[in-house]
Amino acid sequence: MWEYRTPGIPDEYFERTEEVPITKEEPRSLQISKARLSGGYIVYDIGCGSGSITVEAALQVGRDGRVYAIDVDPKAVELTKKNLAKFGISNVDVILSDAKQKIAELPPADAIFVGGTGGDTEEIVRMCYEKLKPKSRIVIGVILIETLYAVLNVVQGLGFSEIDITQVTISKSKKTSTGTMMLARNPVTIISATK
Amino acid sequence: MWEYRTPGIPDEYFERTEEVPITKEEPRSLQISKARLSGGYIVYDIGCGSGSITVEAALQVGRDGRVYAIDVDPKAVELTKKNLAKFGISNVDVILSDAKQKIAELPPADAIFVGGTGGDTEEIVRMCYEKLKPKSRIVIGVILIETLYAVLNVVQGLGFSEIDITQVTISKSKKTSTGTMMLARNPVTIISATK
Repeated sequence: MWEYRTPGIPDEYFERTEEVPITKEEPRSLQISKARLSGGYIVYDIGCGSGSITVEAALQVGRDGRVYAIDVDPKAVELTKKNLAKFGISNVDVILSDAKQKIAELPPADAIFVGGTGGDTEEIVRMCYEKLKPKSRIVIGVILIETLYAVLNVVQGLGFSEIDITQVTISKSKKTSTGTMMLARNPVTIISATK
Repeated sequence: MWEYRTPGIPDEYFERTEEVPITKEEPRSLQISKARLSGGYIVYDIGCGSGSITVEAALQVGRDGRVYAIDVDPKAVELTKKNLAKFGISNVDVILSDAKQKIAELPPADAIFVGGTGGDTEEIVRMCYEKLKPKSRIVIGVILIETLYAVLNVVQGLGFSEIDITQVTISKSKKTSTGTMMLARNPVTIISATK
């Protein structure tokens, strides 16, 4: 279904529903890159939503790797499973749960994605820190100002290194009857750091 | 030197000089993704500058692939060679030439990057179209409005499909004495299309 080595699967290749958010192509490519993945890695995708990051991470870590995709919303879990089937991916465990109830049970991680969480992102980042192997990466996608502030504080407080905050604003072209216009998308902020 | 499978090498890993431009990490990751690379691919990097896209493309296409990096500036060619040595990469030909004098001689391409060119981008894109294999991708990084307009016209006129224009605006965090501020970078526009 996706025969290329590089990440960046176009959004329209994924099954989507109105109710479940998707991490769009460009911020998704950047999040995958900032996680610095390799074959055989153990990865968590916390708040997997449509499963677009799960799919890309699973392709990057390959058959010797494994992705644990967690979401508290049954509709997200169902949609992630549909997308994994669509892309022919089998190295993923999709878990319907509050991440806080599940993280402690997972094997140590080589990379963790956090996104789509509610007001508990700060606590989830704390729990993830305990599970990350040394020198491994956390990548947190943030929309809310409040979450950005809370996550920055907790990431600095936990002693992560190489803390990078990248705000990404994307505009995409659209044909009109008279030419080509650019349509703005909302800014996404990606916080990444090394344990 | 870069042990990961994913693209997105931090800028500070590269040798740099004041005089030669570099495609920065985030637009570079997106350009690599939009090229849809796989192992064994033949890739051109036209206007290679510091060689940061050359390095990332060479890592993605692997030992069975080959990258032809071309620049008309001897300082760019020298810097690209330095970066290839730094990253231990040997599957690249670095060519000091006006691209227009060289493209016809190269083997057919699976993907082409065009960037850092002068007023002749339009002609270069025309020449690249002839060298691209069917279903392969062109990715053009553009700064100037004039180039964007000219490239859009030529890409549409040549009959490329899946034409995508993505404007990327990145801000990066910087520590100040009292907190964390965001520093804006200039917008970069990425035109990508499938032959």
